Amino acid sequence: MLDVSYLINEVILLLAAVFVNGFVCKNAMDVKAEDFFFDGLKPGNTVNKLGSSVNLVNVEKIPGLNTLGISLARIDYAPFGLNPPHTHPRATEILTVIEGELYVGFVTSNINGVGNKLFTKLLKKGDVFVFPQGLIHFQFNKGHTNAVAIAGLSSQNPGAITIANAVFGSKPPIADDVLAKAFQVDKNTVDRLQAQFWMDNNN
Amino acid sequence: MLDVSYLINEVILLLAAVFVNGFVCKNAMDVKAEDFFFDGLKPGNTVNKLGSSVNLVNVEKIPGLNTLGISLARIDYAPFGLNPPHTHPRATEILTVIEGELYVGFVTSNINGVGNKLFTKLLKKGDVFVFPQGLIHFQFNKGHTNAVAIAGLSSQNPGAITIANAVFGSKPPIADDVLAKAFQVDKNTVDRLQAQFWMDNNN
Amino acid sequence: MLDVSYLINEVILLLAAVFVNGFVCKNAMDVKAEDFFFDGLKPGNTVNKLGSSVNLVNVEKIPGLNTLGISLARIDYAPFGLNPPHTHPRATEILTVIEGELYVGFVTSNINGVGNKLFTKLLKKGDVFVFPQGLIHFQFNKGHTNAVAIAGLSSQNPGAITIANAVFGSKPPIADDVLAKAFQVDKNTVDRLQAQFWMDNNN
Amino acid sequence: MLDVSYLINEVILLLAAVFVNGFVCKNAMDVKAEDFFFDGLKPGNTVNKLGSSVNLVNVEKIPGLNTLGISLARIDYAPFGLNPPHTHPRATEILTVIEGELYVGFVTSNINGVGNKLFTKLLKKGDVFVFPQGLIHFQFNKGHTNAVAIAGLSSQNPGAITIANAVFGSKPPIADDVLAKAFQVDKNTVDRLQAQFWMDNNN
Amino acid sequence: MLDVSYLINEVILLLAAVFVNGFVCKNAMDVKAEDFFFDGLKPGNTVNKLGSSVNLVNVEKIPGLNTLGISLARIDYAPFGLNPPHTHPRATEILTVIEGELYVGFVTSNINGVGNKLFTKLLKKGDVFVFPQGLIHFQFNKGHTNAVAIAGLSSQNPGAITIANAVFGSKPPIADDVLAKAFQVDKNTVDRLQAQFWMDNNN
Amino acid sequence: MLDVSYLINEVILLLAAVFVNGFVCKNAMDVKAEDFFFDGLKPGNTVNKLGSSVNLVNVEKIPGLNTLGISLARIDYAPFGLNPPHTHPRATEILTVIEGELYVGFVTSNINGVGNKLFTKLLKKGDVFVFPQGLIHFQFNKGHTNAVAIAGLSSQNPGAITIANAVFGSKPPIADDVLAKAFQVDKNTVDRLQAQFWMDNNN
Repeated sequence: MLDVSYLINEVILLLAAVFVNGFVCKNAMDVKAEDFFFDGLKPGNTVNKLGSSVNLVNVEKIPGLNTLGISLARIDYAPFGLNPPHTHPRATEILTVIEGELYVGFVTSNINGVGNKLFTKLLKKGDVFVFPQGLIHFQFNKGHTNAVAIAGLSSQNPGAITIANAVFGSKPPIADDVLAKAFQVDKNTVDRLQAQFWMDNNN
Repeated sequence: MLDVSYLINEVILLLAAVFVNGFVCKNAMDVKAEDFFFDGLKPGNTVNKLGSSVNLVNVEKIPGLNTLGISLARIDYAPFGLNPPHTHPRATEILTVIEGELYVGFVTSNINGVGNKLFTKLLKKGDVFVFPQGLIHFQFNKGHTNAVAIAGLSSQNPGAITIANAVFGSKPPIADDVLAKAFQVDKNTVDRLQAQFWMDNNN
Repeated sequence: MLDVSYLINEVILLLAAVFVNGFVCKNAMDVKAEDFFFDGLKPGNTVNKLGSSVNLVNVEKIPGLNTLGISLARIDYAPFGLNPPHTHPRATEILTVIEGELYVGFVTSNINGVGNKLFTKLLKKGDVFVFPQGLIHFQFNKGHTNAVAIAGLSSQNPGAITIANAVFGSKPPIADDVLAKAFQVDKNTVDRLQAQFWMDNNN
Repeated sequence: MLDVSYLINEVILLLAAVFVNGFVCKNAMDVKAEDFFFDGLKPGNTVNKLGSSVNLVNVEKIPGLNTLGISLARIDYAPFGLNPPHTHPRATEILTVIEGELYVGFVTSNINGVGNKLFTKLLKKGDVFVFPQGLIHFQFNKGHTNAVAIAGLSSQNPGAITIANAVFGSKPPIADDVLAKAFQVDKNTVDRLQAQFWMDNNN
Repeated sequence: MLDVSYLINEVILLLAAVFVNGFVCKNAMDVKAEDFFFDGLKPGNTVNKLGSSVNLVNVEKIPGLNTLGISLARIDYAPFGLNPPHTHPRATEILTVIEGELYVGFVTSNINGVGNKLFTKLLKKGDVFVFPQGLIHFQFNKGHTNAVAIAGLSSQNPGAITIANAVFGSKPPIADDVLAKAFQVDKNTVDRLQAQFWMDNNN
Repeated sequence: MLDVSYLINEVILLLAAVFVNGFVCKNAMDVKAEDFFFDGLKPGNTVNKLGSSVNLVNVEKIPGLNTLGISLARIDYAPFGLNPPHTHPRATEILTVIEGELYVGFVTSNINGVGNKLFTKLLKKGDVFVFPQGLIHFQFNKGHTNAVAIAGLSSQNPGAITIANAVFGSKPPIADDVLAKAFQVDKNTVDRLQAQFWMDNNN
C-alpha cells in the first residue's frame, strides 16, 4: 500500500522547486555556496587501457552551473597515456598543461580542397591550445612522466563522443555493411573491432 | 607593373560592401532575388566508392543565407549507397526520404551507463528523422533502387566531418601510436588504412 | 471520490520526466528511436479554397526536436494552388521544389527608400529559395499540374501567421476603425472581409 | 584621372576601423560618449494620413548600439491616430503610454484551434503592454487629445513590416492572382488597393 | 492530518501548466491579454536617502514576457536624486529622459591603456543614452525639479547590482582584509562603511 | 610622397582576409596550428600592491578563438595576495585551485529580500567554484605560501571590471556628488580615494 503522505510531501518539495533546462532550479532563498562548489578535481586514476582519466565538472556535478554556459575538466595522463580522438558536440575546449608535456591535435572538417587537415602542437607546461567546437581532437603523453591538463569547455553540458567507441562499440552495433564500406575494411575486421571491450575514460 | 587604377577600383567596390560573418553583405539597394536563389539541387552523381552524393546548399551557395541560420541538402544514394558515419559540428539535421528507402541511425554521446546507444530506423518515402547536433549518424540504401533525401540543417554553415576520412585520411596523418591505441589495432593495420584513398562525397 | 493511488502514480511519472521549453524531456534511459521519427510527411489534401496544404513537422510532432533548433515542412499545391502571404515569426525558411513549378516571392521590411521591395522567382524542380525570418512570403502554383515543395525552418517551433486570416479573420475581429484606416478602405469593405470564412491550410 | 593619394587615404581610414554586423566598429581609443547618444527623440510630426509618427532609435542612429541587442522608439499619435497593423520580424516590443490613452492589440499566430486570437487592452498613462516577437500588432488613439508612447525593442535592428503597405504597396506589386485568392476579393479590388499611396510613418 | 484531495488538486493544476525558464508557462488556451499587461508604471516614491526610485517591469511583473528578451523601467529622481553606480549583469540599457534633465555616465572595463574611461553626457528631455551590458553606470539629477526616465533593458530579467550596497552592504559582510586592500583604506573605514544602512531604490 | 605600390599591396593582403567580430578571420588555407596556440601561461609577477597577477588568454592572444565562445586565465597570488572584487560583464567564470588555498566569494544581485547575499568558500587544491556572469567576486590568499588558480570564462572576450578602480580610479573621475551620495561618505573621503594610484593586475 502506498505511503500517501510521504509521496505528497515529495511532490510538494519538487513543486516548490522548478525545472530549468531539465535541471532543478532552487528557489533563490534556498541557494547555498555549496551549489556553486565541487571538491573532487583531484588526480584521476589512469590505470586503464588508455592510460588516461577525464574528470568533467559540468552541471551534473555543480547544479549552480545551470544556465551559465561553461564547465571545467581535469585530465590525467600516465606515461604514453592517450585521451583518444573524440569530439564535444556542443562546446569548444581550451586546454592548458599544468604538468608534463602533451602532443595534441585536431582535424578540420570537410572543406573543398583543404578539409581533414591535422593541426598538431607539442605543448609544454604553461602552454594553451584550442579545440574548436565539434572537431575531432586528442591528446597524447609521449613522455615518461605523468601529465596533467585543465580545460574549459563552453557549455554547461558539452557532451563527449569517443570516436572509436561510438563507431565500433555502440549498443547495439552499427551494421557491418555500413562500417565495412565507410572504413574500407572487410566485415571480419569490423566484427573483430566490434568484439573488443571499449572502455570509457570519463569519470 | 601593377595596374593601379584597376586595383583602386577593386578596392572601392569591396569597400562599398561590408563583411558580416566573413561573408560579403551587400548594400540593401543592390540586393536581388538571385541572392536568395540556387538552381542546382538536381540529382547528384553517385558513381563512386560510397555510392552517394551530398549537395549542401549553404551560405557559400546562397549568399543571402548570411545571418539566417539554416541550410538545405539533397542526398542521392545508389543501390547499396552509403552516406557514411559523419557529424555536423554546428547543426542539427532533419531529413525526409522523397524516393526509395533508407536505413538510418545515430549514436548517442558518452552518458554514464547509457552512452554510445545506437538508434536506427528504416525510413520509407515520406518519413522524417532527426540527427541531433554533433552526433555521429549515417544513412544506408539497402534497396535495389535509388534513394533520395532532402535535409534541413540548423546553420548557414553546418560543417561536415566524415569520421573515417578525418581519422584515417587526415593530412598529415594522425600518429600511429594514437590511432593504434584508440582503435585497439596494431600499427600495420593503421598504416594500411591510412594508405587508402579517402573520397569525399560532398559536392 | 478521487482515485488517489492512480493520481499519485500519474504525478510520479510526470515528475520522473522534466519540462524543457514547455515540452517533456524524457530521462536519457527512456529515449527511443521513435522520439526522433515521424512518418506522416505524405501528400497533403489540397481540396480547399486555397488549393494548398502545409504539413509542418515541428517539436509537437517529433518530441526529440526539443532544443534542436529546426523543423521541416512539406507543402502541396493543386493547380493554381496558393500558399498565401504569411510569415514565420521565429524562423527563416529554405524551400526546394521537388515536383512541378512554383512562383514564389517575399517582401522586404520598411527600409528608408528601399522598403517593401518584392523579390520573386519562378522555381523549377530542384531550385531552392530562401525566405528570411519574419518577412511576408508566398508560393503560387501557376501550372496545370500539382506542385510539391520541402522546406526547412530554423526553429523547432517557427510559428506561422497567415496575413489575411490574422488581419481579417481574428477572433474577436480587429476594430473597423483600425482596419479601414490601415487598408484605406471603407468600413463596409472591412465588414465584408471579416464576414468571410478564413480557412487555415496548416495540417 | 583618379586622385590616387586621396583614394589611398580613404582606404587606409576605413581599414583602420573594422566592420561588425555590417556596421563600423571604432577602435577602442577613438570611442566617444557621442557614440552612445542620440538627441532627437522629440515629438514627431503626425500630420499625415495615419495620424501617427514613429521615431526608432536603432543602431543606425546610435552606432554604439552595435552588438548590444536593444533599441528604443517614441511614437506620437494625433487624435484618432493609428500605428497600423505591423510586425517587427526580429524583436519583441514592450510599450508604455506616457501621455493620453491607447487602444492596443496583437493577434496570435496559427495555433490549432486557438490561432488568430486578438488580445486587446485600453492603456492609460503609465500602463505597459508587450507585443511578442513577429506578431501583428497596432495601437490606436481613440481619444481627442494627443497620445505618446515609448517602446523598447529587443534588437539593435528590429525591422518593421507595415502589413497593408507590404501586401498592397510593394514595388513591384504582388500579382493580382495571389492577393485576390489570399484576401478573397476580386482583382478589381486588388488593383484599386494597389493604386493607393501607401505612406510610411517611420522616421 | 493532510487534506489529501486539496493537495492532489493543487498538484494537478500545477502539472497542467509547465515551467519554462523557471516561470510558469500557461497553456495556449488559457492565455489572456492580462498576461501581457502591467498597470503600475506610475510616478515612484523618491523620498529616501538617494532621492530616486526604480520600477522595473520584468518577467516577474508581466508573466507574458517569458522567453521574450526584454523589460522596461521607469526611474524617478527628486532634485539632486541619484540612481547610484550600478550594473545590469545580463542586459544592456537604453534610456530616454521624459522630464527634467539628467547627468549620466558609464565606465568602460579594463582595456590595456584605455580602461576605466568615464563617458558622461548631460541629457535633456528627449535625449537617449546607452549603457552597455554589465558596465557600471549612474544617473544624477543636478536640477531643482524632478526628472523622469524610461529605459528598455535587453533581458526579461536583467538583474541589478548596486555597487556600494554589494561591496559594503552584503550579508554577511565581505572580510575587512579584502575590502581594505581593494579600496586602499584602513579597516576602520571599512567597518564604518559596513555599519551604514544600505537602502535599495528598486521597487 | 606615398609609396603607392606598397600601400596597394597592404590593401590587397587585408582584403584577402575578412573581419569577423572585429577580428581578422584568416582564409581557410592560411590557417596554422599557431593560430590556436598560446605559450605564455607561465607564473605571473605578483610583486605589486594587490599581490596578484591575472593572465587572461582571450581572442586577443589566440586569434583562433574568434567565434568560439571561451577563454582561459591563470591567476597567481602571493601570500595575502588579492584578486580584488571585480566582475566579468560578458561571462561566467569557473575556477579551480592548482596550488595553495583561496578564500573566494561572490555577491548576488538585488533580489527583493535576499539580495546582496555573500557566498564564500575556502578552496583547497583541486576544488572548483563558479562565479556567475556579471556578479561581483574576489579571491584572497589567506595563506603563507603562493596560490595559483586556473579559470575558464564563457566568452572569447569576457571583459573585467575592477570595482574599486572603475569607481574611484576612472578617467576622468566620477563627480564627487555622485560618489559621496552612493557610498555615504563625505567629499573629502572621495577626493582622497580618487587621488590614489589604482593599479590593474591584468596582464
